[in-house]
Amino acid sequence: MADLVEATGPASGAAPRGPVLFERLCLIGVGLIGSSIARLARERGDIARTLVVSAKTEATLARVRELDLADVVEADPARAVQGCDGVILCIPVGAYAGVMREIAPHLAPGCILSDVGSTKGSVLRDLLPLLPDGVSLVPSHPMAGTEHSGPDSGFSALFQGRWCILTPPPGADPAAVDKVAELWRRAGSLLERMDAATHDKVVAIVSHLPHLIAFTICSTADDLAQETPEGVLRFAASGFRDFTRIAASDVSMWRDIFLNNREALLEMLARFTEDAQALGRAVRRGEAEFIEDRIERGRKVRRSLIELKQA
Amino acid sequence: MADLVEATGPASGAAPRGPVLFERLCLIGVGLIGSSIARLARERGDIARTLVVSAKTEATLARVRELDLADVVEADPARAVQGCDGVILCIPVGAYAGVMREIAPHLAPGCILSDVGSTKGSVLRDLLPLLPDGVSLVPSHPMAGTEHSGPDSGFSALFQGRWCILTPPPGADPAAVDKVAELWRRAGSLLERMDAATHDKVVAIVSHLPHLIAFTICSTADDLAQETPEGVLRFAASGFRDFTRIAASDVSMWRDIFLNNREALLEMLARFTEDAQALGRAVRRGEAEFIEDRIERGRKVRRSLIELKQA
Repeated sequence: MADLVEATGPASGAAPRGPVLFERLCLIGVGLIGSSIARLARERGDIARTLVVSAKTEATLARVRELDLADVVEADPARAVQGCDGVILCIPVGAYAGVMREIAPHLAPGCILSDVGSTKGSVLRDLLPLLPDGVSLVPSHPMAGTEHSGPDSGFSALFQGRWCILTPPPGADPAAVDKVAELWRRAGSLLERMDAATHDKVVAIVSHLPHLIAFTICSTADDLAQETPEGVLRFAASGFRDFTRIAASDVSMWRDIFLNNREALLEMLARFTEDAQALGRAVRRGEAEFIEDRIERGRKVRRSLIELKQA
Repeated sequence: MADLVEATGPASGAAPRGPVLFERLCLIGVGLIGSSIARLARERGDIARTLVVSAKTEATLARVRELDLADVVEADPARAVQGCDGVILCIPVGAYAGVMREIAPHLAPGCILSDVGSTKGSVLRDLLPLLPDGVSLVPSHPMAGTEHSGPDSGFSALFQGRWCILTPPPGADPAAVDKVAELWRRAGSLLERMDAATHDKVVAIVSHLPHLIAFTICSTADDLAQETPEGVLRFAASGFRDFTRIAASDVSMWRDIFLNNREALLEMLARFTEDAQALGRAVRRGEAEFIEDRIERGRKVRRSLIELKQA
């Protein structure tokens, strides 16, 4: 589906408005990603004629009303999806199976079910078995985020120029895939399509492992801080500071990501650990050339990202 | 030496100019840190009456002249230090022993020898045995940096509000320590004093280990990129991008840091590896509570840094 990629790019200037994509679109969950989609849909007007938002707590629902993020605000996800031709799950991936059990009987024939989760094998595992006939599943992963969460944290430009990966299962309806692709195109995303297993490996190395490492080094430093009277954290230098920025992330979301991308994450952790031990061994043995080679590779990767405009 | 810390803080507004600190100050090496000290000394006028800069290559010396960073530019470090009452080594720590052999016979009695290296045990090891009678050694470590290097990369405000750790050896002349402290105070640094071994542990966790990890994850990702046709680097997400920023550092400097803080770095790597394996095991076993606890600790550490204004 090369045309998906070629036809794509961040919108520049005033985006051309196409026909309205969904008659009635339901977002289940309204954190950083969900509320950013809601703001985008409200601003553009060509994404959904009617926007329904469902959330778990009364406080969040009240905030959605205050922020005027939806036409319809509905606590019960089963009621929220009724009559919708589009439904997007914007909740932690660990909550998918439970929500799917509630909504599946109420999904209308012809409806497109999508999501924005960071793990994709788990989405097929949790959603496909309950998918009613006539409903299309088109999982998506907008690779955009900040360290903030909740309905107040979203903004419509969040997806501009960022990748969005679609992982439709084999045999997915091409028209449904195109519609979800068009949504992300209107969000300004760069689109790519791959199978769920490849996706899960890619994100394990570029996102999940870095987060696991960031959480870990904070713990390691915290232990040391409690052992030493000097208070090591006072002296947090640039390396460490950058790690803590990554570590300031939403707890439920990351717990769910780790648990739902287990195999790929553990494989990347094993590869990384081997590589770290090899560098540690070179330090112990005083092998300057090996150390220089590793540092050079870091610089090379950094340069590649700058060339790819992903830095 | 509590007064050292209490009397300290970033200068606000126009800094009061004190008497000139050094009659003739020599900087050996003029990369990011050295050229920042040079710019500071030129701007303030109260750090050195005469500023001598020595560098290894003719190209760097020429650039120092073009940028007008010094009163005297001198290729030979032995000649450069002659008649100086202050000498600061601003070169990679691996070059200290060789340079010290050259300059030691030419250090004048009463001279203060300092440095800006990121490892401090190695400084005592390499410099103390060759220190002439009457010369005071006051090592310092300004914890400030960017990913850039070379004489063009420095700026006089680099040290503003950043920690500078002094590690004078036991029995160091208090007047010499005060003079070096005053230099960093005029640079706007926050001062702290500790022994070299404690310093080396602190920086191992807040700076050296994060760099080792960043270099490693870039290598791991680079290997994976070469195995997969999809090109994982294209999808570099926020976690990974932050790591590559750290990894874009000077090769010789970091090679020398790793080799000269070997014990502390390997201890921190061992601690970190244990902690990473424990988190990996929790992921494998599906232990949600352990995972949440680690993520929470990351957030807690981040909040501490924000409170300490080091974020």
